[in-house]
Amino acid sequence: MSNPAVIDLLGVLAFGELVAFERTANDAKFAPGVSEKITLGRMASNEYRHYEAVSARIIELGADPIAAMEPFVEPLNQFHNTMKPSNWLEGLLKAYVGDGITADFYREISVYLDPQTATLVNEVLGDIGIAEFAVDHIKQAIANDPKNAGKLALWGRRLMGEMISQASLVAKTRPALAGLFLNPPAGVEVDIDNMSTLVSRLTVGHSRRMDALGLAA
Amino acid sequence: MSNPAVIDLLGVLAFGELVAFERTANDAKFAPGVSEKITLGRMASNEYRHYEAVSARIIELGADPIAAMEPFVEPLNQFHNTMKPSNWLEGLLKAYVGDGITADFYREISVYLDPQTATLVNEVLGDIGIAEFAVDHIKQAIANDPKNAGKLALWGRRLMGEMISQASLVAKTRPALAGLFLNPPAGVEVDIDNMSTLVSRLTVGHSRRMDALGLAA
Repeated sequence: MSNPAVIDLLGVLAFGELVAFERTANDAKFAPGVSEKITLGRMASNEYRHYEAVSARIIELGADPIAAMEPFVEPLNQFHNTMKPSNWLEGLLKAYVGDGITADFYREISVYLDPQTATLVNEVLGDIGIAEFAVDHIKQAIANDPKNAGKLALWGRRLMGEMISQASLVAKTRPALAGLFLNPPAGVEVDIDNMSTLVSRLTVGHSRRMDALGLAA
Repeated sequence: MSNPAVIDLLGVLAFGELVAFERTANDAKFAPGVSEKITLGRMASNEYRHYEAVSARIIELGADPIAAMEPFVEPLNQFHNTMKPSNWLEGLLKAYVGDGITADFYREISVYLDPQTATLVNEVLGDIGIAEFAVDHIKQAIANDPKNAGKLALWGRRLMGEMISQASLVAKTRPALAGLFLNPPAGVEVDIDNMSTLVSRLTVGHSRRMDALGLAA
């Protein structure tokens, strides 16, 4: 059996992709036209394939994917139910911001993963084209109607706040996961206050993405 | 440019698969557990792949997929908006009944298609496992609570009625499609009242599927 913290990390990633698939497909109902619906469908299908790849890796590592995902079902559902987009732009911003923070998080913790798992995680979190698509559409919408900027900036802040809040709850209930940062594997150097440094760095990444849209983080 | 009726048939099939993908993924929110969510995700991803295959065939035949789908966007959206499942069992029955009627319809009209298109349509409409999954879950739910039977039988009748009603509207606005039955290609024999025969045969297939569930059609 592998390091339980690694199984936790793969479990949350697998369930995250499964829920992302569901939400992206659901946001297709907001698509202004058939062509945007097709793009969202392609992204959602990719997210489902990612789920399958991570699930297969959990099995290879000797664990059960359903059991590995179970601790994260509640917090991720909580996040998605609290942050239900009410229109096309909110859906796009949520996907862009959520994917960005998730990718940054896994990049930060990839030093704790075995090389094969790290490669897989890297592939799964490679941009599936949503960033460019979202940025283009959001910028265009703000150019068409500057009032969109304020509403989206607020939505972006709420997304980031809710992600940090759910992640803190998860960290409290998963000691192995939290312990990863306090008891790193041999050869990995970490700060004493590694977790708060991590949050700061994730916040910087988030601000950078909001800046790219011309939105206040 | 191909026969416009064939492009119509592929257009409605392509958009049907795209919307089926969206609705299946959306029904995943009703899934009683993570394992059923995974099954619905796999089905939805298959439906998206089917959309891609039909869309590619439309391009091969020299037409534009978006233009080919356009006449069917409104009636299919209308059908899905009128028949929104309100729970897990209604979602399963809708997928089972809808896939069944669609497959029967394309089997009936496959004589009008060139062999390559007919093979593709056959592949796309091959059962992706939803029938067995739906039948198992619905039968179990009725065994657990016989009150489910009456509600589901009613839902099944409404689904069939709404499909026939939307299909009639489509037939009226797409003369090439309706004409297929009146002016069949050389070598294909048809009854004078082929369209009403078709509806009768589809109704028989629907009754057979409802019977398999122990439900009155």
